Amino acid sequence: MTEMEQMGARAKAAARVLAREGAKKSAALFAAAEALTAHQEEILAENRLDLAAGREAGLTESLLDRLALSPARIAGMAEGMRAVASFPDPVGRPVGGTTHPNGMRITKVTVPLGVIGIIFEARPNVTADAAALCLKAGNAVILRGGKEAIRSNRSITAVIRGALEQAGLPADCVQLVQDTSRASAAEMMNLTQYLDVLIPRGGAGLIRAVVEQARVPVIQTGAGNCHIYVDASADPDQAAKIILNAKASRPSVCNACEKVLVHRAAAQKVLPKIKAALDTKNVVIHGCPETREILGSCVVPATEEDWGREYLDYILGVRVVGSLDEALEHIAKYSTGHSEAILTQDYSAARRFQQEVDSAAVYVNASTRFTDGGEFGLGAEIGISTQKLHARGPMGLEQLTSVKYLIEGDGQIR
Amino acid sequence: MTEMEQMGARAKAAARVLAREGAKKSAALFAAAEALTAHQEEILAENRLDLAAGREAGLTESLLDRLALSPARIAGMAEGMRAVASFPDPVGRPVGGTTHPNGMRITKVTVPLGVIGIIFEARPNVTADAAALCLKAGNAVILRGGKEAIRSNRSITAVIRGALEQAGLPADCVQLVQDTSRASAAEMMNLTQYLDVLIPRGGAGLIRAVVEQARVPVIQTGAGNCHIYVDASADPDQAAKIILNAKASRPSVCNACEKVLVHRAAAQKVLPKIKAALDTKNVVIHGCPETREILGSCVVPATEEDWGREYLDYILGVRVVGSLDEALEHIAKYSTGHSEAILTQDYSAARRFQQEVDSAAVYVNASTRFTDGGEFGLGAEIGISTQKLHARGPMGLEQLTSVKYLIEGDGQIR
Repeated sequence: MTEMEQMGARAKAAARVLAREGAKKSAALFAAAEALTAHQEEILAENRLDLAAGREAGLTESLLDRLALSPARIAGMAEGMRAVASFPDPVGRPVGGTTHPNGMRITKVTVPLGVIGIIFEARPNVTADAAALCLKAGNAVILRGGKEAIRSNRSITAVIRGALEQAGLPADCVQLVQDTSRASAAEMMNLTQYLDVLIPRGGAGLIRAVVEQARVPVIQTGAGNCHIYVDASADPDQAAKIILNAKASRPSVCNACEKVLVHRAAAQKVLPKIKAALDTKNVVIHGCPETREILGSCVVPATEEDWGREYLDYILGVRVVGSLDEALEHIAKYSTGHSEAILTQDYSAARRFQQEVDSAAVYVNASTRFTDGGEFGLGAEIGISTQKLHARGPMGLEQLTSVKYLIEGDGQIR
Repeated sequence: MTEMEQMGARAKAAARVLAREGAKKSAALFAAAEALTAHQEEILAENRLDLAAGREAGLTESLLDRLALSPARIAGMAEGMRAVASFPDPVGRPVGGTTHPNGMRITKVTVPLGVIGIIFEARPNVTADAAALCLKAGNAVILRGGKEAIRSNRSITAVIRGALEQAGLPADCVQLVQDTSRASAAEMMNLTQYLDVLIPRGGAGLIRAVVEQARVPVIQTGAGNCHIYVDASADPDQAAKIILNAKASRPSVCNACEKVLVHRAAAQKVLPKIKAALDTKNVVIHGCPETREILGSCVVPATEEDWGREYLDYILGVRVVGSLDEALEHIAKYSTGHSEAILTQDYSAARRFQQEVDSAAVYVNASTRFTDGGEFGLGAEIGISTQKLHARGPMGLEQLTSVKYLIEGDGQIR
């Protein structure tokens, strides 16, 4: 057995213990939260080594910022763990069933998925967040973070593993892949014998690689080429306010707006207001010819490539369309299925848009930035699924479970 | 674009129309059921050509039997379609949500998956069954059956497509892949741009090939190495009756029992009764040394390979175990996660077995043969999922849907 296979086998064994000893999960998470704070100095020391190595390797400032821990960030991780520990147990909930005419009782109950693999990049806080959510849902987890954060991740994982043992659970409920080479990621993607699901958390490149290569079932997260369609009847001031928020309140996240489509009948009135709002944050507009005609040459000409792009930056693609149908066509063609919004006062247009746009979250008169587990009332989230199988939209604890049927009889045969 | 890609694009367009025109689905299915009966002679004529070609190619009798249609089988297909048409619409059901503190209404509703691919083997009735279930759940479907049934499938598909058009829906809601080569299956498995999910229906070889090769998300169905564990406290007569039913009432199906584990304390008393029952159907036992000691040399010595095998035949693997724990270990090691049962009068043993066995259906004192959509109250089923992602156990209409979030606001920003 390779090292990865051994980890898989240990995770599977740990998952079986968790299925029996689920009552200990929350205590373990509270203990882990305590331990993170208690071992703060060690974690920060390891993190400083990662940061030094990262600076030497020439990581960008924004990557270094994602990598950096601080007492406040560690406190945040611990706080997140306590919050997850406090949620109701998502496992063992009856969610369906029936009594068969022959008297058998059939109950569908939630169960853990089993063993979850997470492949992520440079954020060490993902280690604690993902471990907490997976564990609360009764799963063993194998974490494989980026090489930039390996020392921090190792330190955080060691602290959590200690807390698990203290609480009477196997340390192997949470394991970290020590080898951060591409080969280890590739091996993990094909660990079908041990992994029940693989969740990549990171940029579009990582997610594409996992979807291309993995034979383990994958939940795709994150890619968001989100559209806002400004209908003819939209309130221009509200439109400008929502678009500014959706684009510029945090451009690096997947629920940020990347494209605005404006109905031709509203373009003359709405586009200047949108531009004025975006100017306050120095957002650059990439626009279609009509947009440039109205807003002038400060608008960069949009190319075909623009419409499919997720900028994750202070850039917005803008296109004038002739009708709701044209907007729906454009969205069907270019959307990644994350979040789209219509701004309108027209009841029928709102209804059609919500019915026909095939995305995880479809808004009327609100910012796409709300697509988030916390905002949608799920508590925490492990990512936002842009696929349709198993989970769609923000994934909370419920999406980290499966079901099984329990059938109780007294001799029934068919 | 290749022919397969063109089919994908047409299916995707048809799925968008279905999302708008969902009200027409059931009428289309009733019309298709009518049409199947009305065009019975054409379908039977094509089926006779398939059968003749199959005989020439030397298909086994059991394959020819699966391939054969008759007026009764066509009536059964039509009846199945009407039943599916009569079910409540699985699409558009609110299944969650909340009102955000800022006043936005957030509703989670069921939606179609989109485009479903089905790869199946020689049973032409799958064409009608799968089309009906996919369509009722609002999905377009691309069917790819085995070459043995191509004429029958073409004829059935043509009839359904005609009924769809009559009902005002695009014929391309249901498409049949004309090319039955391996290459067409391989291309379909990688049609990620158009297919939302792929469901293989058939033998273990087909399912393995799809899981190995597909980049489209797959729902695994079918493989059932199902175990019955006879605990020390089991009622011996009831055990014999249940095991006979589970093994021999229909050995070729995935919920048939393949292995029996017997607690050592019950072996002397129970094994002869089990054997006597199985003898009435000429079931051959492959047993461990202890089983052979008790039952004699008519028992074929079981090899390691036996424990992982799905016989789908009048063969049963039998092993004596020393404890519930040993039974749980054996099942964890060899089960395909389909259906397992414990026969016991011991409350704690029943409870532990149901909690710790990680299979889609876990029985106490009943036959594994009940794992079926109809028996579990789902109406019809498109297969039995042995994976944990998205669907587990019998898959009905609900499992052919996804969800989306609809958010209605009046200017909210974050």
